Amino acid sequence: MKSTTDLNMVNAYIPGRAELSPATAAMIERRDALLGPAYRLMYEHPLHIVRGEGVWLIDPEGRRYLDVYNNVASLGHCHPAVTEAICRQVQTLATNTRYLHNTILELAERLLATVPETELAHLMLTCTGSEANDVAYRIAQVRTGGTGVIVTETAYHGFTDAVSKFSPSLGVTVDLGAHVRLVPAPRLYHAEGADLCERFTRDVEVAIADLQRHGIKPAALIVDSLFTSDGILPEPAGLLKGAVEAIKRAGGIFIADEVQPGFGRTGEHMWGFQRHGVIPDIVTLGKPMGNGQPIAGLLATAEVLAEFGKNSRYFNTFAGNTVSCAAALAVLDTIEKEGLVQHAARVGKILREGIAALADRHEAIGDVRGAGMFVAVELVADRTTRAPDRELTTRVVNLMRDKGVLLSACAMGHNVLKIRPPLVLTAEQAGMVIETLDAALTEAQSAKAR
Amino acid sequence: MKSTTDLNMVNAYIPGRAELSPATAAMIERRDALLGPAYRLMYEHPLHIVRGEGVWLIDPEGRRYLDVYNNVASLGHCHPAVTEAICRQVQTLATNTRYLHNTILELAERLLATVPETELAHLMLTCTGSEANDVAYRIAQVRTGGTGVIVTETAYHGFTDAVSKFSPSLGVTVDLGAHVRLVPAPRLYHAEGADLCERFTRDVEVAIADLQRHGIKPAALIVDSLFTSDGILPEPAGLLKGAVEAIKRAGGIFIADEVQPGFGRTGEHMWGFQRHGVIPDIVTLGKPMGNGQPIAGLLATAEVLAEFGKNSRYFNTFAGNTVSCAAALAVLDTIEKEGLVQHAARVGKILREGIAALADRHEAIGDVRGAGMFVAVELVADRTTRAPDRELTTRVVNLMRDKGVLLSACAMGHNVLKIRPPLVLTAEQAGMVIETLDAALTEAQSAKAR
Repeated sequence: MKSTTDLNMVNAYIPGRAELSPATAAMIERRDALLGPAYRLMYEHPLHIVRGEGVWLIDPEGRRYLDVYNNVASLGHCHPAVTEAICRQVQTLATNTRYLHNTILELAERLLATVPETELAHLMLTCTGSEANDVAYRIAQVRTGGTGVIVTETAYHGFTDAVSKFSPSLGVTVDLGAHVRLVPAPRLYHAEGADLCERFTRDVEVAIADLQRHGIKPAALIVDSLFTSDGILPEPAGLLKGAVEAIKRAGGIFIADEVQPGFGRTGEHMWGFQRHGVIPDIVTLGKPMGNGQPIAGLLATAEVLAEFGKNSRYFNTFAGNTVSCAAALAVLDTIEKEGLVQHAARVGKILREGIAALADRHEAIGDVRGAGMFVAVELVADRTTRAPDRELTTRVVNLMRDKGVLLSACAMGHNVLKIRPPLVLTAEQAGMVIETLDAALTEAQSAKAR
Repeated sequence: MKSTTDLNMVNAYIPGRAELSPATAAMIERRDALLGPAYRLMYEHPLHIVRGEGVWLIDPEGRRYLDVYNNVASLGHCHPAVTEAICRQVQTLATNTRYLHNTILELAERLLATVPETELAHLMLTCTGSEANDVAYRIAQVRTGGTGVIVTETAYHGFTDAVSKFSPSLGVTVDLGAHVRLVPAPRLYHAEGADLCERFTRDVEVAIADLQRHGIKPAALIVDSLFTSDGILPEPAGLLKGAVEAIKRAGGIFIADEVQPGFGRTGEHMWGFQRHGVIPDIVTLGKPMGNGQPIAGLLATAEVLAEFGKNSRYFNTFAGNTVSCAAALAVLDTIEKEGLVQHAARVGKILREGIAALADRHEAIGDVRGAGMFVAVELVADRTTRAPDRELTTRVVNLMRDKGVLLSACAMGHNVLKIRPPLVLTAEQAGMVIETLDAALTEAQSAKAR
C-alpha cells in the first residue's frame, strides 16, 4: 500500500522515517487504503487521539498531550458553553437561510459590533475559511472587473480551485494562477534595518504594475494580518497601510484574512487587521469561530457587495444553519465572559518572555516574536547569518510531541516553531511549554553534537 | 434599505409582491441590513421557523408546516439517532484529520461498501457539496491535464468560483467559464419519441468536439444523476452510458454528482448513478450526509487520485472532524435500520400515483415523474404544446405554503414542482400532500379563470 509523503509540508509524517508501534502502523495502513494519497498526518510518530478536554488531547492509553497547536478549539476542547449550545440547538432546529431565523441575525449583529471603525456592514456565512476566501475572491472580481491577486510568498488562503491558485505554501507542485503575484513577507528579523513599511508598499506597487503590464486588472490584495504561514510576523504594526492604499488606488480591494489570527488571538483586538490601522473591504473569518463546529464567513462593506448581490444569489446549504450559529454565539459570549483577549495578551507575554530567556543557553533560538497567543520561535543554524535550521526544527517539534507538548512549524525555511494554544492556556501551562522546549532543545542539540 | 430580488431563482421572495405581517416585514428588513443583498428567502410570505420535528417545521405561533422540501434533514428534523451521536461526540472530541481517529475510517468503510460494483477506493471529506465538486474538479484537472467541463443546461453544482462557472442554474448574470459547454437535459416529456440515450450521447460528443476545436482539453463530464435542477428527469434509466464512454474516450473523467439524489432518495439504490449502470471516476456526496450537520465529500478511484495525491496535500480544517463523522455514521445506521430506501420507494410511489390521479381534473398537470422520494410535477399551459406555466407554478407553490405544505419548483421553465420530503414521510402524510395539491390547483385555476 502506498503511503503519503510531502516534503513541502512542514512537520508531515514521512513513512519509513521512524519505527512505529504495530497498532499505529496498522491504523496508518488502513487509513492510507481508505482515504487515499492526498491526506497527511503530523509528526514522525502520528498521534491517535480519542478525547479532548480543555488544553489537553488524550490518546487511547490515556496519555495526555498539552495541545498548543490549536486555534480551532480556541476556548479549549469540548468547552461546555459550546457543547451545550450545540446540543440544545441540534435538538430544536437545524435548518437553512432560506427561512427566517433569529440566531444568524444575532450573530451578525455581534460580529459587526466588533468592527465599529470600519464600513463593514454585512455578514455572509460559509462552512470553511477556504469557502470564505473563495467567495471573497468572487466578490472582488465582480466589484473590480479584475482577476489579479497579490499575496505574500508563503501565504495559505485555502484549498478550493480558485484559492489554491493563490496559496503558495501548498508547495511548487500546486500551480499558482497566471493572475497571481507574490510579494515578500515582512521578515523584520532579516530586514537588516530596512524600513519594512516602505518596502512592503513598494513590493505591492511593483506587483500591481506587473499585473497591469500583463494586461491583468488587479482585483485584490489578500493578507493574513499576522502573516501566519509566512512565519508569524506581527511587526511593525501599521505595516499594511501603504499597501492597502496602493491596491485601492489601482481599483482593487483589500481582503484581511482573519481565519488564523482572528477572534482575539492577538491579545490586543478581536482582529489582526486592527493592529495595522487599516480599513478592509472584506474580512474573512474561520477556524475558532465555532470552537470546532464548521462555521466560517466574511464581513463586507455595502459598496463592495452591491453588484455581486444583484447578480449572484448566495446560498450555502449548511452555512448559517441554526446549530453552527448557536455555536458561534457561544464562542463570542465565552471570549467576553472569560476575558480571553486580555488573557491571551497576559499569558502570551509569559510564553514569549519565557522562551526568549531560553536564548541565553540555546544558540539556535534566533528570534522569539508574536502577538498574544500566537508565538513564533525562529531556529537558526547561525545567529550571524540567521540561516534557517530546518532539520533542528523538525527534531524539536517531534521531541516536544514525544515529551507531551503538541506544536508545529511554519515559514518558507520550515524553521519557525508555531505555537498557538487554546486561548485558555494558563500561566502554569505556559511554563510547561517553556520547560519542555528547553529540554527538547538541549536533547536535539546534544544529539547533533554527537 | 434595499431588498433582494432574483427573477432567476425559482420561488424567491420578491419584495413588494405581497403584503407581509409587521413582524415578518421587520425581520426581513433587519436581515437585509445585516446579511446584505446576496441572500434570498423562499415564498411570497417568507417563513420564520423556530423548531423542527420529524417532517414538520414549526413557526413562532406554533403553526406546523409539512416539510416536503428537505433532502438535508433526510431522516426527519432532529432525528434522535443523529442528535445523540452529535451530543455524545461533541462532548468527547472534535478534532481534525492530521491526527488518527477511528470514526472517519469507519465512515469510509461504510460508504465504500455501498459501491461494490465500481473501482471507487477512497473517501475524501469536505464540509459542503460545493467543496466536494470543487475538489473533484481540481482532481480532474490534475488527472487529465485538461480544464474543459460539460454539464447540463440548468445544472447546479455549487457556488465556489470554479464550480459556479459550471452551474448555469445560477442564471445569466453569473458567467459560465469559456471552458464550459452545456448539453440539453433529457426531457422525456418533451422528446416526441426521440431516442434520448442516443441524443444525449451525441450532444456530449458534440460538446467534446467543440471544446477540442477551441483548444480546450476535456477534463470532466459532471452530471447530477437525477438531473435535479433540470426538472428531475429519472428516465430512461441507462441514459448516461454512451456519454460516459464518450468522455472517457476523450481522456476526461465522469463525475456523478450525488449531492441531491444520493443516500437512498431514489428508492432503488443508495446512489442515483446506479440506476444508469455506469461506473464513475468520482462520486460527490453532500446534503443528507449528516442530516443537517455540515459534512460532504467524494469517493474516487485510486487511478484518478494518484497524481493529485502526490502533488497536492489535502487538508480541510473541519472536514472529517469526529463530530461530523459521527453524525454521518448515525445517518447510515438509520437508513439501514429504518429501511428508508425501501420506504422511499413505497411512499414515493404513493405520492406519484396520487398526484398522477389528480391529472383527471387538473388540466395543468402535464407530467408526474420521479424516483423514490424525489417527485416532479410539471405544470403546463397547454397539454398539446406542453408549454410551461411558470405563473401557475409560482401560485401553487405559495398556496401550498399557505395551506401548510412546503415545497418548491425547478427546471428551466420554472414550472416543475420539486417534492423531496424527508425519507420518513408516511403514506398518510403523502396523502396530505396530494390533497393539499388538489386544493391549491383548484384555487389557483379558479383565481385564474376569474
